[in-house]
Amino acid sequence: MPGGSDQTLRPFLWRASKLYPDREIVSRTHEGVERYTYDEYADRVAALASALDDAGIEEGDRVGTVCWNHHRHFEAYFAIPSVGAQLHTINPLLPEHHLQYIVENAQDRVLLVDPSLLEAIEAAYDPEAFESVEQFVVMGSSVPDTSLEPVVAYEEFVDGDAEFDEYDWPDVPESQPAGLCYTSGTTGDPKGVEYTQQMLWSHTMATLPQAGLDIGADDVVMPVVPMFHVNAWGMPFSSTAAGAKHVYPGPSPDPADLAQLIEEEGVTLTAGVPTVWLGLLEYLEENEVDLSSLEQIVIGGSAAPESVIRRFDEEYDVDVVHAWGMTETAPIGTVAHLKPKMDAWDAEDKYAKRAKQGLLVPGLEFKVVDDDGEEVPWNGEDFGELLIKGPWVTTEYFKRPEATEAEFDDEEYLRTGDVVTVDEDGYVHIVDRAKDVIKSGGEWISSLELENALMGNEHVAEATVIGVPHERWQERPVAFVVPAEDADEDDLADGLASMIEDEYPRWWAPDEFVFIDAVPKTATGKFDKKTLREEYADESLVEGQAPDDAAPEQD
Amino acid sequence: MPGGSDQTLRPFLWRASKLYPDREIVSRTHEGVERYTYDEYADRVAALASALDDAGIEEGDRVGTVCWNHHRHFEAYFAIPSVGAQLHTINPLLPEHHLQYIVENAQDRVLLVDPSLLEAIEAAYDPEAFESVEQFVVMGSSVPDTSLEPVVAYEEFVDGDAEFDEYDWPDVPESQPAGLCYTSGTTGDPKGVEYTQQMLWSHTMATLPQAGLDIGADDVVMPVVPMFHVNAWGMPFSSTAAGAKHVYPGPSPDPADLAQLIEEEGVTLTAGVPTVWLGLLEYLEENEVDLSSLEQIVIGGSAAPESVIRRFDEEYDVDVVHAWGMTETAPIGTVAHLKPKMDAWDAEDKYAKRAKQGLLVPGLEFKVVDDDGEEVPWNGEDFGELLIKGPWVTTEYFKRPEATEAEFDDEEYLRTGDVVTVDEDGYVHIVDRAKDVIKSGGEWISSLELENALMGNEHVAEATVIGVPHERWQERPVAFVVPAEDADEDDLADGLASMIEDEYPRWWAPDEFVFIDAVPKTATGKFDKKTLREEYADESLVEGQAPDDAAPEQD
Repeated sequence: MPGGSDQTLRPFLWRASKLYPDREIVSRTHEGVERYTYDEYADRVAALASALDDAGIEEGDRVGTVCWNHHRHFEAYFAIPSVGAQLHTINPLLPEHHLQYIVENAQDRVLLVDPSLLEAIEAAYDPEAFESVEQFVVMGSSVPDTSLEPVVAYEEFVDGDAEFDEYDWPDVPESQPAGLCYTSGTTGDPKGVEYTQQMLWSHTMATLPQAGLDIGADDVVMPVVPMFHVNAWGMPFSSTAAGAKHVYPGPSPDPADLAQLIEEEGVTLTAGVPTVWLGLLEYLEENEVDLSSLEQIVIGGSAAPESVIRRFDEEYDVDVVHAWGMTETAPIGTVAHLKPKMDAWDAEDKYAKRAKQGLLVPGLEFKVVDDDGEEVPWNGEDFGELLIKGPWVTTEYFKRPEATEAEFDDEEYLRTGDVVTVDEDGYVHIVDRAKDVIKSGGEWISSLELENALMGNEHVAEATVIGVPHERWQERPVAFVVPAEDADEDDLADGLASMIEDEYPRWWAPDEFVFIDAVPKTATGKFDKKTLREEYADESLVEGQAPDDAAPEQD
Repeated sequence: MPGGSDQTLRPFLWRASKLYPDREIVSRTHEGVERYTYDEYADRVAALASALDDAGIEEGDRVGTVCWNHHRHFEAYFAIPSVGAQLHTINPLLPEHHLQYIVENAQDRVLLVDPSLLEAIEAAYDPEAFESVEQFVVMGSSVPDTSLEPVVAYEEFVDGDAEFDEYDWPDVPESQPAGLCYTSGTTGDPKGVEYTQQMLWSHTMATLPQAGLDIGADDVVMPVVPMFHVNAWGMPFSSTAAGAKHVYPGPSPDPADLAQLIEEEGVTLTAGVPTVWLGLLEYLEENEVDLSSLEQIVIGGSAAPESVIRRFDEEYDVDVVHAWGMTETAPIGTVAHLKPKMDAWDAEDKYAKRAKQGLLVPGLEFKVVDDDGEEVPWNGEDFGELLIKGPWVTTEYFKRPEATEAEFDDEEYLRTGDVVTVDEDGYVHIVDRAKDVIKSGGEWISSLELENALMGNEHVAEATVIGVPHERWQERPVAFVVPAEDADEDDLADGLASMIEDEYPRWWAPDEFVFIDAVPKTATGKFDKKTLREEYADESLVEGQAPDDAAPEQD
């Protein structure tokens, strides 16, 4: 059988260390900013690989990390997969029972833990769940007081000279699982998604070109998105493949830290969730910062308000680029670049396009289907669930055949659980999560759009909308609203109802406005609609509460 | 086993036809310039796929093409691999016995032949060698007079409506051979290199980023390099993956044709061998052409004179970018982009770097070894043979286990047969072919450098240098020189000898200057050193003809 050699991560690092030996990796730590070069980095990766060997780690074993974004975590990114083991990045913000489930499910043999995150692991520690863990390694030069054992400091663990070129790297096949990340679902146990060497290689190659994140050797890349969130969107790998300079902002960076790193290190490309950039914009209003090096901010996780895109563009000449992805897609699936023909468009039309999640990157395929599995037209209006597949899209869940069964269709498309429209130009726009979309009278209502509309009202602090069972219409929307201080609830309910009726089909208007003190939240700070839904599950609304002419005809 | 879906070519076309349906494919033909969109192109690909089905082509079969660069050939590029068959691009410029060997070795079942290339196939036709060919298809609307049979016109062959979305594309595994190209070696039979779907996918992804050819949806790509030369360096695939506009310059384009296409179609990126661009420069001297759209000319096949790089840069603001590759590397291996730190360099130093073959693209690994298999230092001076491996580098020859044995080392590195230096910055520079390098006294002498030096003399029309067996030094260089008209041979020999001694180590100076009327050439126009070497094989030079102090000490 002909065919090239296996697609693995190590040659990316080999190339960077040989062609860009002096390019820097910069890391903000508690002790200040540390920096070294690819040349030194590669040797440190070999030292960690050697330490893992000494610890008895073998091909197929899993090594967990509970860490922020810093150079030691980055060392783990290449060392663990390159010895044939699996880099299991753990989100320390999960509830304790999820941490227990994850470590037990993964059977991590070694856990690398940041000093500032020891407490989270100590709190979650349970001898049974953590039985597989033979060694805790604290990411620093010394070990603080901790109940975890056996424990060793990272710098002691990796002690000893090693050279990247001298280390006897194993031939890892491309089918070897190299990464593992759990989705923090709001329902049931977290589901593990494994990334093979080939999947990480493919994702890396796909994110380098213009249609991806457009990363070159000139770039200085600062991933603000945590490295425990789907490998910081793959940037530690893609930046290395490109020979770019890396900047890791360390534990809990605030806007001042980010501004300083951008200015001092000449960051060209950075990425994170919208709240990070809202925070930076606020900071920039009060402080003089030189952002001239910055070219691109990639935003994912959730949609950025159009105003954020606009302000960075107009005031700072920085492109804010939306990207969409999920744990199962490793994660990047779409990126909101404009097309050649749009160069001539006026600014408002461009912003409207850039507010969407964007265009599929090369190498993937997708379709958008309704409840009957029929593809919906690309008209920017009809909704359906996004189904996707490709070389870096997972085809199963770790040790969870029943979840795999549920989440993939016959043609191996992943059911993303995202409800989207696709417009005439092929731009995907997320309108809701499949579990949140309200199915009423044979049509779908976007809970997300209603929430955004409600939260646009100055008298509303927070709002969420769920579908409540309904005898005739299947479901009807009910809004839960946290009023701003000094708002009159009766006036507000009337005002919101008429606002929705003005902007949306009449049958989108919530049947009830329930005023509450706070919207319940999940561990990751998202609205916890599950709790609300459980509360309202038995309170089926009766016919008559929805005006007859308010709901659409059934097909 | 986790892992994404297979890496195949079809999703690139699917994406382009959906996201860039109106982007054009432009094709220069004998009848003028034709154009259509990706949308129509995709349906034409389905029509060809359907025609191949009707012709009985099945997975694993080979379909040969004997064609220039045009839209119908491009249709074959996606249709043949996407039905699971193998696109076998045949170089019509090969000698007849090679064409016979290739068709018989490949067992092509269908041959797609350009009208202007029918003659070459008719001349090579041999019932035994062509026994596997069940159908000749002439690339046009009608069939000219031909002795080939059975024969049908392409437009008749693909007649019938087909839609890309409706066609029942098979699930082709990534390990399926999708392409086949023979190397036109000067010794022995041509060797076939197969490209699996995965290799072509990998090469496509690797050539899109900045470190590759940097192709985006904005680009207008014109491959001048023939589509029978290693898939036109993969550009038909990579341009599709990017959603770029394609421009195919058709049969035997002259400089005026190229200039017109660049100007009228807004070409941003083009690629070909150095002589094409020398021709264009000459044309530009005499004619007013608007080259403002053109950003990048990729040069491969052989090295471009530095003056070409300089003139395009200074006079036309066009980047000339060297790339290196070979049939076995699908083909792109290195690209001569400058590094970030070189921005500040002065122009001359930049030109010197850009005259080299460049930096390895991400995903590959290489090493440069001497006769003992030891790696040579990266100092820009020591030579060695370039060994390379990676996901799109072949690991065997088609039906040629003995050639496979000879061309790969233990670690599956391909022996490229190119002798190179690598400088401190990692830039690869080809100094000779391994079979041409002269091994004298334990050191290597570059025949290519000597030839270039000799041909730089105004009294030399052509020159080639070979190694001739020598009792003491193993080999010594002998130069074969075609003097310019009115040159005095004796004066010339003295002048050349002292010129070489001035510029190179004394032991590089040829022991003899032999004046000839013309350097023998191969079918592809390269110097045929094999013939010269055979002639001189028995005329071993005796000790004494090389001055004792002229050769280096043996180690």
